[in-house]
Amino acid sequence: MSKIRVGIVGYGNVGKGAALAVEASSDMELKAIFTRRDPEKLRSAGEIDSSVAVLPVESAESMVGDIDVLLLCGGSATDLPEQGPYFAKMFNTVDSYDNHAKIPEYLAAVDAFAKETTSIISTGWDPGLFSMMRLLFESSLPYGASYTFWGEGVSQGHSDAIRRIEGVKYAVQYTIPVKKAIDAVRGGQKPVFTARERHKRECYIVSELDADKGKIEDAIKSMPHYFADFDTTVTFIEEDEFASKHNKMPHGGVVLRSGNTENSSQVMEFSLKLESNPEFTGSLMVAYARAAYRMSKEGLFGAKTVFDIPMKYLSPTDRDTLIKELL
Amino acid sequence: MSKIRVGIVGYGNVGKGAALAVEASSDMELKAIFTRRDPEKLRSAGEIDSSVAVLPVESAESMVGDIDVLLLCGGSATDLPEQGPYFAKMFNTVDSYDNHAKIPEYLAAVDAFAKETTSIISTGWDPGLFSMMRLLFESSLPYGASYTFWGEGVSQGHSDAIRRIEGVKYAVQYTIPVKKAIDAVRGGQKPVFTARERHKRECYIVSELDADKGKIEDAIKSMPHYFADFDTTVTFIEEDEFASKHNKMPHGGVVLRSGNTENSSQVMEFSLKLESNPEFTGSLMVAYARAAYRMSKEGLFGAKTVFDIPMKYLSPTDRDTLIKELL
Repeated sequence: MSKIRVGIVGYGNVGKGAALAVEASSDMELKAIFTRRDPEKLRSAGEIDSSVAVLPVESAESMVGDIDVLLLCGGSATDLPEQGPYFAKMFNTVDSYDNHAKIPEYLAAVDAFAKETTSIISTGWDPGLFSMMRLLFESSLPYGASYTFWGEGVSQGHSDAIRRIEGVKYAVQYTIPVKKAIDAVRGGQKPVFTARERHKRECYIVSELDADKGKIEDAIKSMPHYFADFDTTVTFIEEDEFASKHNKMPHGGVVLRSGNTENSSQVMEFSLKLESNPEFTGSLMVAYARAAYRMSKEGLFGAKTVFDIPMKYLSPTDRDTLIKELL
Repeated sequence: MSKIRVGIVGYGNVGKGAALAVEASSDMELKAIFTRRDPEKLRSAGEIDSSVAVLPVESAESMVGDIDVLLLCGGSATDLPEQGPYFAKMFNTVDSYDNHAKIPEYLAAVDAFAKETTSIISTGWDPGLFSMMRLLFESSLPYGASYTFWGEGVSQGHSDAIRRIEGVKYAVQYTIPVKKAIDAVRGGQKPVFTARERHKRECYIVSELDADKGKIEDAIKSMPHYFADFDTTVTFIEEDEFASKHNKMPHGGVVLRSGNTENSSQVMEFSLKLESNPEFTGSLMVAYARAAYRMSKEGLFGAKTVFDIPMKYLSPTDRDTLIKELL
């Protein structure tokens, strides 16, 4: 059986994770990585297998016909709003667009160009797996309350916000769900939580030599939206501790439904505990690349979401075997 | 919008749960219950709304055209192998066929008759939701080990096995997952467990007045397959305690994947904690009835499994709103 030929646009953390996941999939081969950086520099860093082409992003057009699915691993703020529609015109695509509020607009923009291709958007874990669980849970238990908790994990947005404060050299922020809140829902309660009751925030900071630590801590804890509404701890550490203990990108979270049928309390739960957020996101994108490829072969064109994809398309195993072994 | 007209075949625990779930769904109406018992007796028990027809199972054929989806709530041992194919010829159907080993055979039998109908088989939670999670987890993390734990919950098969022992008046058996085993997998380990290491069994028994309790306990603990391979406790209780504390049908369980991407441990988990197993199963069948109805409207005929159904079909909410609110 011929392999699914995959290309990757953008070689940041998620792009690297996706490349690893393609290489770990026996039914796929990585044909090319498209980058806005200097391809020669990327190549000479030595991480990329010599069989994989490393090309400037503008040259993707020349590889139509050589690539079955393109994984768009750029950012949601500026990359994907341009790249999603542009590449959907030429390739089957998969992305992890994660700007929740603008998903309908982005979906419509991609759909307008995916006339003879299949493009699956927002395939990470939130949006993505968590969204699927919210839909599945509410459909299974129409009466009830749904909850999403995030963490423990690194929030890039909150880490960036700290790094912009004067005197901060390095910083990382961990979002941590409040265990008491999760346990209440698991026990069948349906509380209405404030932001503070659901999550807390832990910050680890390396400050500049001459920095005023008290001022940094105040600036963080009083920052509106990001920290002011949460119980926040700020810990100053040395550079070597930061480098050795805070160099990973763990994340995860929990989706819960505390529901009722006529006479009974019923609780559904889904959770992830990830040592590497970008490697897991890359791995999910590869499963959806398989779906995009198969659906395009069946003429199921257009922009799709995780709500539109039967699960059988995600696995390299054929339907009969899946039914026999997993159903 | 006209409501989806639902019929139910078999009014046992799951049938009752399904009837409650139909009544709780604003987009559905319950048209008829088909029973092998005396319809008059079922009617006079007073549980069924007067707007619902209660009819002998043979008369279902006369209601083709009045019912959009038929929920088959009979047992998997003898009812469904006959009823599944028979009714698939005339109606869209949904069942919770749960004999794992014979699912491929049953699917083929139903498919042979579902030429102009949509029949979704095995829609409970295992098979059903748990199967979907096994597929989703293995597709997301190809490298790793999967685990299914059942309980805490009542096992009908094990309870029945105890009731067949001489001197036993009433009995219930709870299957309980071993917490240490679940915690090991949650921690990213991939152990190979014996049956005893994964589950234990607790039996509550009301014995006949003249029964030899020691003999009953020995008979249970030495019973091959059912109990001999497990740590089993046997507790004799009085009839009133049995009636007040063991009159529910709770169940649940956990599906876990302890996986790896290139450099990282990644753990996925799905769990259910159900006060009423049959009410939850009935509620799931109703969500899949919605899917069967919609797929039949789109001409997607044949026997389907939970692996074949996009999640958007399960919700009463339209796709655009789902994408806006849940993705």
